[in-house]
Amino acid sequence: MTHFDSEIAALQEKLLLMASRAEAAVNKAIRSLVEREDDLAREVIQDDDIIDGLEKEVDEQVVVLLAKAPLAKQLRLIVSASKIARDLERVGDEATTIARRAIELNTEPQLKPYVDIPRMATMAMQMLNAALRAFTSGETNLAVEVIPQDKDVDALNRQLYRELASYMIEKPVTISRCLHLMTISKSIERIADHAKNIAEDVVYLYEGRDIRHGLIPPV
Amino acid sequence: MTHFDSEIAALQEKLLLMASRAEAAVNKAIRSLVEREDDLAREVIQDDDIIDGLEKEVDEQVVVLLAKAPLAKQLRLIVSASKIARDLERVGDEATTIARRAIELNTEPQLKPYVDIPRMATMAMQMLNAALRAFTSGETNLAVEVIPQDKDVDALNRQLYRELASYMIEKPVTISRCLHLMTISKSIERIADHAKNIAEDVVYLYEGRDIRHGLIPPV
Repeated sequence: MTHFDSEIAALQEKLLLMASRAEAAVNKAIRSLVEREDDLAREVIQDDDIIDGLEKEVDEQVVVLLAKAPLAKQLRLIVSASKIARDLERVGDEATTIARRAIELNTEPQLKPYVDIPRMATMAMQMLNAALRAFTSGETNLAVEVIPQDKDVDALNRQLYRELASYMIEKPVTISRCLHLMTISKSIERIADHAKNIAEDVVYLYEGRDIRHGLIPPV
Repeated sequence: MTHFDSEIAALQEKLLLMASRAEAAVNKAIRSLVEREDDLAREVIQDDDIIDGLEKEVDEQVVVLLAKAPLAKQLRLIVSASKIARDLERVGDEATTIARRAIELNTEPQLKPYVDIPRMATMAMQMLNAALRAFTSGETNLAVEVIPQDKDVDALNRQLYRELASYMIEKPVTISRCLHLMTISKSIERIADHAKNIAEDVVYLYEGRDIRHGLIPPV
């Protein structure tokens, strides 16, 4: 392993650290909702700075490494790292949105036990996880499988939206709670979007053959 | 101007083309809402592919140019281009969200003339415009001014959210219309977020001095 390779490995490790932080934030935000625990939600909101800071660190390493990258494939990997960091930063933001709404919801009686939302969250997190494993392992088939799953999460979000919209028409007293749950559902749907974006970047990174009229040879 | 400089200029031009497409999409989406014109909304939804395609073209040029960039400042500019392209692609997505909701709203009587939403949209588009001018001109003060404006758009979005939430409690028959307007308001708020992200990238691009322990000399 050359010195450059080990710097690339360090970049990937930092991205994985970011991913595990973002993942933990989402999981904690969902727990704060399901278990009605404000303290967990507050932790998510406070710790978002750490994820934001990691994005900056990734970007700094990206620029340093770009100046030294000898191969087109490495350049693509480094640029992807930067884009993936931005997606993970946004996943962190969605976690704080969920946490904020959980705190609001916890001030009122629970509408009903939450079933669909944790299920959607599990789907979105599995997508994110698979996309990141594809990034580090180069197994693009993992990433390819992620892409269509986004439609399933979209469908669940739309279904929940319709259910909540009817529910609020029937019982206007539940409107504010239904609105919070809609926002949370939409946040999860966006996390799945980010996972899909990462998966698309990974496919392009490893299989992007159309890479501009032979200016850069396939690697 | 060297050959490399002219390639960088071409990259910036492509990004500006993308920006004007994204901007036109948002404006058209807002018009489809205000003027209740489904055809405009359908055009926005159809043309989103063009914006997505431009992001791919930017990314291809990014990788080609990175392999040839001699200076750290150029590397940073090229990486920023890639991130900005992703933001503009998302602005396009928000335009399609607005367009879809406009089509839904146009099937029902108008709640009242839209005042706040076009106002928010104008603010968000001015932010986007200033951030992109800062990117091409290097006038970072333009970008610095954009950043605090995001809070104004956030505040308008929250205010509208509260108004619409009270309105739906008073008149449950308006619930579905209020929900569409909330989504549109949130989409505009996200466009402002993207403008802020671009502005932050521009500040970092031109003023990022902390660029890693002297590994790359300031340019």
